[in-house]
Amino acid sequence: MLELIQNVIFKHLSSPELRQLDDSAELSMKSSRIAFTTDSFVVKPIFFPGGTIGSLAVSGTVNDLLMKGAQPRHLSLGLIIEDGFPLSDLERILGDIAQACQEAHVSIATGDTKVVGRGEADQIFINTSGVGEILPHAHVSGHLAQNGDVVIVSGTIGEHGVAVMSQRNGLKLTGKIASDAAPLTNTVLPLLEKWGTELHVLRDPTRGGVATTLNEIASASQVTITLNENDLPVSEPVQFVSNLLGFDPLYLPCEGRFLAIVRPEHAKDIVKHLHTLPHGAQARIIGEVTQQKNTSGVMLNTLTGGKRILDMPVGELLPRIC
Amino acid sequence: MLELIQNVIFKHLSSPELRQLDDSAELSMKSSRIAFTTDSFVVKPIFFPGGTIGSLAVSGTVNDLLMKGAQPRHLSLGLIIEDGFPLSDLERILGDIAQACQEAHVSIATGDTKVVGRGEADQIFINTSGVGEILPHAHVSGHLAQNGDVVIVSGTIGEHGVAVMSQRNGLKLTGKIASDAAPLTNTVLPLLEKWGTELHVLRDPTRGGVATTLNEIASASQVTITLNENDLPVSEPVQFVSNLLGFDPLYLPCEGRFLAIVRPEHAKDIVKHLHTLPHGAQARIIGEVTQQKNTSGVMLNTLTGGKRILDMPVGELLPRIC
Repeated sequence: MLELIQNVIFKHLSSPELRQLDDSAELSMKSSRIAFTTDSFVVKPIFFPGGTIGSLAVSGTVNDLLMKGAQPRHLSLGLIIEDGFPLSDLERILGDIAQACQEAHVSIATGDTKVVGRGEADQIFINTSGVGEILPHAHVSGHLAQNGDVVIVSGTIGEHGVAVMSQRNGLKLTGKIASDAAPLTNTVLPLLEKWGTELHVLRDPTRGGVATTLNEIASASQVTITLNENDLPVSEPVQFVSNLLGFDPLYLPCEGRFLAIVRPEHAKDIVKHLHTLPHGAQARIIGEVTQQKNTSGVMLNTLTGGKRILDMPVGELLPRIC
Repeated sequence: MLELIQNVIFKHLSSPELRQLDDSAELSMKSSRIAFTTDSFVVKPIFFPGGTIGSLAVSGTVNDLLMKGAQPRHLSLGLIIEDGFPLSDLERILGDIAQACQEAHVSIATGDTKVVGRGEADQIFINTSGVGEILPHAHVSGHLAQNGDVVIVSGTIGEHGVAVMSQRNGLKLTGKIASDAAPLTNTVLPLLEKWGTELHVLRDPTRGGVATTLNEIASASQVTITLNENDLPVSEPVQFVSNLLGFDPLYLPCEGRFLAIVRPEHAKDIVKHLHTLPHGAQARIIGEVTQQKNTSGVMLNTLTGGKRILDMPVGELLPRIC
């Protein structure tokens, strides 16, 4: 079984590093500033409109490297497979991993496969860790948002959450909603190269969505972030399903979007440039950063002219959404 | 729940990199030759004589970095936890992780925690990935074994496999058998520094044990490796339990031992030095490497004067042993 799996894996994934077959892969890195990240993926269902647990596992980790100002270089792949999991499903997932790696310009450098008994795992869990080279002039971090900065979102929000939750709830929305999950290498690297020093924060709004992510940034930077509801890019189908299932799109995870907090002088140029890049066509300025002593948080200027505090989520986050 | 877990994790594990709380950690690496590895741990039971899934998860990945000639530097920690898993057990595991990290001179730089529903995972699964700096003069790989080289094992074999299998089978051997699981930083780094260019292969005999690992090396290097049964360090309790449960110690996993294949001129000095190091007291020369055209494999000179082929294992490997 294990041998079979290894053969199947090598059929889809083959990099010089992986082929070394030593206990560790040897990587040659061009920068001494290395970004390192890890994420386990337990999404349920494993196949959903617009993606699979495989494409998600690559996108999620690649994007986390980009959000630190790094060029993603190599991923690890840890598979935990339930005994009896169909080989055809594994092949589909591996095919998606290979395709996402190609799109993201990364290789799977090292891997591990464990098979556990029936009922000891739910189909398949995937861990990807990643290493990347931080660009020399990139210095982005959640605590670097400053008074006067502007908040940009790279596209419409909530698609991933709605795609997974619809599938899980048996809603038939074929063709209307697809997960946004995508590796953002070709979208973020051009920005980093052109506006590296003007970018203060990059963050992908995954678990807990835009509202939660901005709360984390506001807290780390000790600033207030104010969004304008009017400017939020939410597609009609996402709004419709959110109303139906009782979600707020601001708290739904995205897996192919990012938030950039930037110097105001360059915000419009950055948005304009994003419009020319893959996954950036719907980019918009959605808010601004202010700094007052002893206050931090996220506010929403509502459509009706009111103000609403966007808190950290209190109840349970959506489980097994990524 | 998730917040609780994060707080518990930070109580035990706290490195400057982890505290950054960005999507990726920023590491500062001194070498451009980076070792990168990953391993998922699904061992059952999660607590066994001599270790826990936590100490195992650190040792396993640290040792894989060392086996590539690297100084282990940073690990990632991916936890998949079954809903309802006792917090006290999690604390015990995290405490072991922290202790093993300290012993191995590594930090947990980045992490991720997912909680899945009851019955969707078996208690807890841990993925650790690791990065390390390959020493400048180190060039070790499974395909570098050469004619005339000598095979060294760093200690007695089979303890980890026997400890886990005894626990799983309810055998009471308290005090007699403990897993060998340990990070080998303080054992391997001195060798690399002193005999870097003389070390051709380093490999820890984990899944499939010494026989399987040597088969992989023999195949990669296209050599024959001949062991002398008389020289194999197997403790009496391991021999006893192996006979009882029907295992061959040569195929039992070790998690705190390594095999070194080295130039013969230095083999005795290396063993002598190992005897002064932690986890090296029982080190021995156990065999030699020969090269003949179109042959590769592993042979055993038996106690009774015969010869036996040590094949790759044919049946299923012991499941959930690491």
